[in-house]
Amino acid sequence: MSIKPLQALNNSLQNRVIVELRAGREFRGTLDGFDIHMNLVLKGAEELMDGEVVSQADITIVRGDNVIYISP
Amino acid sequence: MSIKPLQALNNSLQNRVIVELRAGREFRGTLDGFDIHMNLVLKGAEELMDGEVVSQADITIVRGDNVIYISP
Amino acid sequence: MSIKPLQALNNSLQNRVIVELRAGREFRGTLDGFDIHMNLVLKGAEELMDGEVVSQADITIVRGDNVIYISP
Amino acid sequence: MSIKPLQALNNSLQNRVIVELRAGREFRGTLDGFDIHMNLVLKGAEELMDGEVVSQADITIVRGDNVIYISP
Amino acid sequence: MSIKPLQALNNSLQNRVIVELRAGREFRGTLDGFDIHMNLVLKGAEELMDGEVVSQADITIVRGDNVIYISP
Amino acid sequence: MSIKPLQALNNSLQNRVIVELRAGREFRGTLDGFDIHMNLVLKGAEELMDGEVVSQADITIVRGDNVIYISP
Amino acid sequence: MSIKPLQALNNSLQNRVIVELRAGREFRGTLDGFDIHMNLVLKGAEELMDGEVVSQADITIVRGDNVIYISP
Repeated sequence: MSIKPLQALNNSLQNRVIVELRAGREFRGTLDGFDIHMNLVLKGAEELMDGEVVSQADITIVRGDNVIYISP
Repeated sequence: MSIKPLQALNNSLQNRVIVELRAGREFRGTLDGFDIHMNLVLKGAEELMDGEVVSQADITIVRGDNVIYISP
Repeated sequence: MSIKPLQALNNSLQNRVIVELRAGREFRGTLDGFDIHMNLVLKGAEELMDGEVVSQADITIVRGDNVIYISP
Repeated sequence: MSIKPLQALNNSLQNRVIVELRAGREFRGTLDGFDIHMNLVLKGAEELMDGEVVSQADITIVRGDNVIYISP
Repeated sequence: MSIKPLQALNNSLQNRVIVELRAGREFRGTLDGFDIHMNLVLKGAEELMDGEVVSQADITIVRGDNVIYISP
Repeated sequence: MSIKPLQALNNSLQNRVIVELRAGREFRGTLDGFDIHMNLVLKGAEELMDGEVVSQADITIVRGDNVIYISP
Repeated sequence: MSIKPLQALNNSLQNRVIVELRAGREFRGTLDGFDIHMNLVLKGAEELMDGEVVSQADITIVRGDNVIYISP
């Protein structure tokens, strides 16, 4: 039983996810939404640069073309 | 209850947002508009390079493909 | 009352604008036209590289995918 | 008898695959899904950077435009 | 009275233009044609790298996505 | 008598090909399939980095946007 | 009398062309075909890196998005 990538994202809604972006940037937060471009809405996310927390925000809207992978 | 990224942007209209762009550039201003490409209109925005304010403008029209994330 | 990015560009027609491009390039001139890709026509624009004026031209047609932001 | 790339991916479902990404990143895991953009779902995947395992996750959703090649 | 970018290109047909490309490359020649992608045909163009003439050709077909700006 | 690029690829099916990718990567194997994006399926391919064989695989699915050229 | 870029390419079929690619790569050969993406088929082409011939092939299929310019 296989699963489409967007369905796997849908299954991750309201779960904690790790979002790896280009250029050493990472977010860890709750996946509150997404669209077909993999634009994401994260709640209560921490932003990490090269492994260090550099900021925190209630809501973060990530543009999908920066995403390398998402791990629920 | 989840939310689509563009709906989250819509909810941020007329609010102060942080807009992180590629190459160490950032804007902090009031979100006055956007479209489906995440092109943005910012009012009263400061531009920061590597954390330092380098300019200020009444209106700034940002091309969406430079955006990494937007945080209201 | 919000505004779409292309409407904001339309409101800037025949006004002086700052156009920030990738790789440290900038134009300052009068916005004489644009299209949905943010291709631009500038009149009487100065080109700056890292803040120094390097050229001047009556008409400059900028390909939109180089644009970071436009500030009227 | 030739085979289309997406058909070859389909034949690899539920098999172990090596996924080579840009910037020296690699995943080794079970291919649990894909779509026409080569977005991928991997199960039980290890992430390697320059040949070293750096993380492990139950589910990894990879955005297709980072993929260089997939090898079942 | 404003002008669309492609109309400005059309007005430049058979005129000498400067075409600035990415990576320090420039052409100076007569604009003999273009299409909506800003693919260009130049006649009698000189190619310059960082300001030095490096080649000359009767006809040069430039792929539009390398163009930064065109100046008639 | 000219030939379209995809027709030339079609003529190369089941032949040995050299596939040059970005960033100094190359594959040498049998072309077992392709699609309109130049996504490729290679059989029995060797991967070379800067001219050195670094891996071998029964099947390799290459994402087309990494391809510089294919030589049968 | 102007000419569209693809028409100029069509006029170059079966002629010797110089194809300049990104990253210092160049081909010199006979243009045997092309499509609307500027994917090219070259016959008897030499590949040059930074001006040095590094390989030769009967047929070379170049993916169009690497092309900077083509000169017949």
